[in-house]
Amino acid sequence: MEELRNAQEIKDFLLQIINDHKNKESILHPFDISKELEALRKLDEESYKFICKKMPSELFAEILCEMPTYIQEEIPSIISDTKIANITSKMDSDDASTLIYNISQIDEEVAENILSKLDKEDQKIIEQLNSYEDYEAGSYMQSELFYVSIDENIGKALKRLKKQKEENILDNIFHAYLIDNNRKFLGAIGLEELILYEHSQKFDEIAKDKITEYSINHKEDISEVVEMFAHYNLSALAVVDDENRLIGRITHDDIHDIIQQQDTKQLYSLAGVNDEAEQEESLYLIGKNRAFWLGINLITAILASIVIGLFDATIQSLVALAVLMPIVASMGGNAGTQTLTVTVRQMALGEISYTDAKKTIYKEVIISLVNGFLFALVIGIIAYFWFKIPLLGLVIAMSMIINLLSAGFFGAVIPIILEKFEIDPAIGSTVILTTVTDVVGFFSFLGLATLILL
Amino acid sequence: MEELRNAQEIKDFLLQIINDHKNKESILHPFDISKELEALRKLDEESYKFICKKMPSELFAEILCEMPTYIQEEIPSIISDTKIANITSKMDSDDASTLIYNISQIDEEVAENILSKLDKEDQKIIEQLNSYEDYEAGSYMQSELFYVSIDENIGKALKRLKKQKEENILDNIFHAYLIDNNRKFLGAIGLEELILYEHSQKFDEIAKDKITEYSINHKEDISEVVEMFAHYNLSALAVVDDENRLIGRITHDDIHDIIQQQDTKQLYSLAGVNDEAEQEESLYLIGKNRAFWLGINLITAILASIVIGLFDATIQSLVALAVLMPIVASMGGNAGTQTLTVTVRQMALGEISYTDAKKTIYKEVIISLVNGFLFALVIGIIAYFWFKIPLLGLVIAMSMIINLLSAGFFGAVIPIILEKFEIDPAIGSTVILTTVTDVVGFFSFLGLATLILL
Repeated sequence: MEELRNAQEIKDFLLQIINDHKNKESILHPFDISKELEALRKLDEESYKFICKKMPSELFAEILCEMPTYIQEEIPSIISDTKIANITSKMDSDDASTLIYNISQIDEEVAENILSKLDKEDQKIIEQLNSYEDYEAGSYMQSELFYVSIDENIGKALKRLKKQKEENILDNIFHAYLIDNNRKFLGAIGLEELILYEHSQKFDEIAKDKITEYSINHKEDISEVVEMFAHYNLSALAVVDDENRLIGRITHDDIHDIIQQQDTKQLYSLAGVNDEAEQEESLYLIGKNRAFWLGINLITAILASIVIGLFDATIQSLVALAVLMPIVASMGGNAGTQTLTVTVRQMALGEISYTDAKKTIYKEVIISLVNGFLFALVIGIIAYFWFKIPLLGLVIAMSMIINLLSAGFFGAVIPIILEKFEIDPAIGSTVILTTVTDVVGFFSFLGLATLILL
Repeated sequence: MEELRNAQEIKDFLLQIINDHKNKESILHPFDISKELEALRKLDEESYKFICKKMPSELFAEILCEMPTYIQEEIPSIISDTKIANITSKMDSDDASTLIYNISQIDEEVAENILSKLDKEDQKIIEQLNSYEDYEAGSYMQSELFYVSIDENIGKALKRLKKQKEENILDNIFHAYLIDNNRKFLGAIGLEELILYEHSQKFDEIAKDKITEYSINHKEDISEVVEMFAHYNLSALAVVDDENRLIGRITHDDIHDIIQQQDTKQLYSLAGVNDEAEQEESLYLIGKNRAFWLGINLITAILASIVIGLFDATIQSLVALAVLMPIVASMGGNAGTQTLTVTVRQMALGEISYTDAKKTIYKEVIISLVNGFLFALVIGIIAYFWFKIPLLGLVIAMSMIINLLSAGFFGAVIPIILEKFEIDPAIGSTVILTTVTDVVGFFSFLGLATLILL
């Protein structure tokens, strides 16, 4: 699809979409429509509001769940609570609960009001989904799923599925979930197996080895769910409560989003950025969060300066030291960042665990030691030719080895220790590491210079 | 499953698995078996080789494709080419081609020999899959899929599916792919739709709106495929050749792996680490690749030192400058890394594009300017009270503003320019950025000090 960049063109295009939808002719994917609507919002706010008001609830339900948090948050300022309730009632439960949650973050009362306009059943489900913590599997599930009773006739169950699909209650179905009379989860049968059975057969005639029993407790950590999807190539996973009753499912497309969110969080954390704050539209909120980590960095930088200050007399007598000292600190910071990043990532991917810790530290120490000797040689020679002081070459070479060694050691040890204490090893580890490499770098270089050169 | 840590226990456990498999009783997922086999390899190489030799080809096919590259590479040194060929023939085409590719990276001749033992059809498919470039959709597809002719009877097609599933030719089926007599792709019908039709109906009786037409050309960039899966919540995507003939499919579980690989590459690139090298077992290869980026960093650190060297007389007359100067550089480096990381990530997630470039740069400049003033004030006051030289506070405050401003500007501009020239913005951008923030930081601080203080 070619990009429309003019506000009027986008507006006309969206009006056409609305028209097509009313005639049941729409073929564009809701994601693509949401992108156009978002573009219109940037170009012409009035037209954007006009389109929002004109959009039929059924279509808006599909589009709104594709849109970013800040747009969901501001929706009550554009359309009525009653229409939002209507839209919400047409969403899948996971999307509906996210919308209500986002609105509640701005105005609790409006969210309550919208919720009160929904029917009791929907209210209960949304409240339940929003009662989970961020990291719990339950907060990612949807309650819409295709469940069947073990003594049911396959054909009859499929008729029900057909009806529920026509009513837009169910879609993205990968399994029929088998439950007993108390809604206890018995297993899942994939559609690719089920389709091979005759409609006249019953579910209890299905061969045992066609039924998978993977499920997850609703309170389990979502990272556990991501691992199960990755390891077992799942399409969807049943979520059960503490009594093993089937209460929802998580589908593979949610997992994509979770993986990307987790990876973004990891990358941002290592760079001293808060992933949630960066989603905001307000430059003030983004800037404030970045300032927090810059403030922490300032403290560690001052710490490094205090170390340098200990040796001011040494520097005074040989200014070449001031010229060379950032090299040692910089190389340590870089080598440490390499180690830290690899360790954090491999821990996140489950490639190294606490039991492998010794091996990882050993590996990193060896690598950094070898590179330490290599760059000690290089910088030693350069420093010698630059300042013509043989012992200065020796000093910088020695401190390079010391700093790269400690960079490798601490780059591996810091995230492993944080993980051991159940602290996210990506958050804050960079600052701790650079404090170490700066302090060790400056101290070893200036300390050795004081001992050897003066 | 509890972890087995003793070599003998793992060996016995795996022997039991092999036995169960022969009796068709195995219920453990191949991924879990692969983890045990990997653990055994670390603990006791002889037992590992013994188990590899004993493992039936059918079971080994499922396990080997779960194992890391370096284990696949060394497999020819443990079992015969004939057995590897046998194992390969039982794998899905994408896994088979990966195995042959990995083996060929170590010994081209062995790979050729294994390939020659396969039947002509398999040979052709594997060679075709391995002829694609890394980034092409075709290199991620598998050729096994369930295709049906538009004028075929549904029941008849499902019988074929049943047979192919029983023969382990097909699994993980999400769609029936409709093709015409020339194998041209007509569309895909999801099993959740197909299951609602009577077996006596024909495919051309299926309602048009139940058929999806998404497909991707085999030469298209894989990142395009990842985006389609993310935007349209796909389970599988048809791959077509230049004549629109159906030649394969990519499934959602491949996409998980690709997302994680892409994210790992991005994270590693920003930290100056090569993701492929880190997969190696050899410390030499890992260390060599890290040394490359450390070498580049050394050059930029020396560049910064040369800048400092320009002002050696200034430092000589006021050593406080040497004490404070790393603070300005460090804060610039940090602020720049924040901006760079967010920009690179948001470009990768498609949240900002080249057309948004101006807006992104504007946003980053505003944030860094505000934080620049904030930290200028803080460090200005600290420097004043530390060294009791009012103008020193002014100098460091001014250079803090200059360096944070340039950090924000270049942190956004560098990746945008790299992207414009179709260079991966994650690779090398950190080094370019820290060169800028170091040089600007030292030059502005020492330069202003020379002008104002002396």
